[in-house]
Amino acid sequence: MTPQNLTATAQRIQPYIHRTPVLTSRLLNEIAGAEVFFKCENFQRMGAFKMRGAMNAVLQLSDAQKAKGVVTHSSGNFAQALALAAQSVGVKAYIVMPQNAPQVKKYAVRGYGGEIIECESTPEAREQVAAQVQQEKGAFFIHPSNDLDVILGQGTAALELLEDQPQLQTIFSPVGGGGLIAGTALAAHYFGKNCQVVGGEPFGADDAYRSLQSGKIEGNNTTNTIADGLRTQLGDINFPIIKNHVTKIIRVDEEEITASMKLIWERLKVVVEPSSAVAFAALLREKEAYQGQKVGVILSGGNADLSKLPF
Amino acid sequence: MTPQNLTATAQRIQPYIHRTPVLTSRLLNEIAGAEVFFKCENFQRMGAFKMRGAMNAVLQLSDAQKAKGVVTHSSGNFAQALALAAQSVGVKAYIVMPQNAPQVKKYAVRGYGGEIIECESTPEAREQVAAQVQQEKGAFFIHPSNDLDVILGQGTAALELLEDQPQLQTIFSPVGGGGLIAGTALAAHYFGKNCQVVGGEPFGADDAYRSLQSGKIEGNNTTNTIADGLRTQLGDINFPIIKNHVTKIIRVDEEEITASMKLIWERLKVVVEPSSAVAFAALLREKEAYQGQKVGVILSGGNADLSKLPF
Repeated sequence: MTPQNLTATAQRIQPYIHRTPVLTSRLLNEIAGAEVFFKCENFQRMGAFKMRGAMNAVLQLSDAQKAKGVVTHSSGNFAQALALAAQSVGVKAYIVMPQNAPQVKKYAVRGYGGEIIECESTPEAREQVAAQVQQEKGAFFIHPSNDLDVILGQGTAALELLEDQPQLQTIFSPVGGGGLIAGTALAAHYFGKNCQVVGGEPFGADDAYRSLQSGKIEGNNTTNTIADGLRTQLGDINFPIIKNHVTKIIRVDEEEITASMKLIWERLKVVVEPSSAVAFAALLREKEAYQGQKVGVILSGGNADLSKLPF
Repeated sequence: MTPQNLTATAQRIQPYIHRTPVLTSRLLNEIAGAEVFFKCENFQRMGAFKMRGAMNAVLQLSDAQKAKGVVTHSSGNFAQALALAAQSVGVKAYIVMPQNAPQVKKYAVRGYGGEIIECESTPEAREQVAAQVQQEKGAFFIHPSNDLDVILGQGTAALELLEDQPQLQTIFSPVGGGGLIAGTALAAHYFGKNCQVVGGEPFGADDAYRSLQSGKIEGNNTTNTIADGLRTQLGDINFPIIKNHVTKIIRVDEEEITASMKLIWERLKVVVEPSSAVAFAALLREKEAYQGQKVGVILSGGNADLSKLPF
């Protein structure tokens, strides 16, 4: 891996993504005791940073691969992201989703031209069905987070943030499957000025915290969190990057996630989904350590269900 | 009035306000059948365009006037705006608010250093108490919407929007007291290229619609609308500007306001208050007339009460 991998990725996907704005709030600065720069990936196409990684992966396919389509398994934002990324370059996307995924998410995937293949709601079932599609259709499998092209794509959010704010001392990222924080860590490592990366993770799905502690990939004991985008598992491709380049992971409880989300909605006036609020919650939980710093916070997505708000 | 009044205003207030971003959404464009540019005054300081007018009025005071402070009556965003504008230049602000105004709004005014004087919840009571403060304290009265400096300040939002998107054919603005739409109309008249201005107003508080019909200022028969910022009355200073430079006013019902607000939250990912959604609701109601146009929509503010959402 070199810095050029990241800059080439940024150039490659640039025509297909939004350069998202960076927002600030005096009141949130006061509350955090730091100068906080929020990278608004909730304004990204299809509403989340996932578009970056999906786009980068799709753009690297050969013509032969493009002709046969792509496949992934996801009940969340990556499902929509891959469908839209594939549609953007005229490629067919097969999306393996659990039968019980919310209707609104299935509707969104179809809206972006994705073909949904339903499966049982277990990790084993979705991997198995994805493998089946891969075999039957010859479709190219793209993992939502444990894929180097996806990781590099996700890293372009922090790359842009560091272009706008080169003096950031710490960047906070949520940790789910690990693609975003791994990409963020690479961007900070190559382009930051001694910029550290800190993860925010729910206590209810703390595989990354425990993996960093033990030095090997640990599973989630539970996935009891409102931050539905962070219930996924680290992978063997992103974990080594996280181990090398992430300073620490701060766990937050559900009340902290909800309070952080409410602050962001009320004060920053942007709609973020619960997973997005976890990074800012982590900063607030240990804010004493970041007093007076210039801090980046990645707001990962805005696909919140307005009929199920926690406040 | 000349174009220079507006450009001088923009220069005067520039150090004290945010230049707010302009956001777009492909999906909202599809729904509207037009290319829609949303001017995000919900990101303005204290959360609404009112900051612009308040700042402009405060900055024009003489030193003698500044020493005695300013006074207004408002239960809404102008209360906070004047408190913050005055505080920004070290001026005392007296804010006359109805006793039954929400606690959260009183709290916000005090947070910006404003001194609240409570009154009965009638238009007569608040005018009378404001006059009393004016007399007793020697404070300078600044009306929330019927004041030329306030109107010019509000017009700088559309001025910025036209700088960013000079080819706009129509700008939609909500109509409450008339300050925003009057300022918008001046900006479009002086700086647009045949850019018309259209107002959005709730059926439940349609004084501006009926005033344009009759040619003289009409009162509100009711103020039954969720768009609480638009329950106020036109004034004799802004009405002539509106009469001369606003093409038409489109009335919308409560369901249309709620649906528009939900679309903006879900698709644009920004938090807007109900009053803000009225302009876009007006565009959607008569969208056939604006097919294929480049259209601006002013999102006036983001101070929504998250515990009282209509969806």
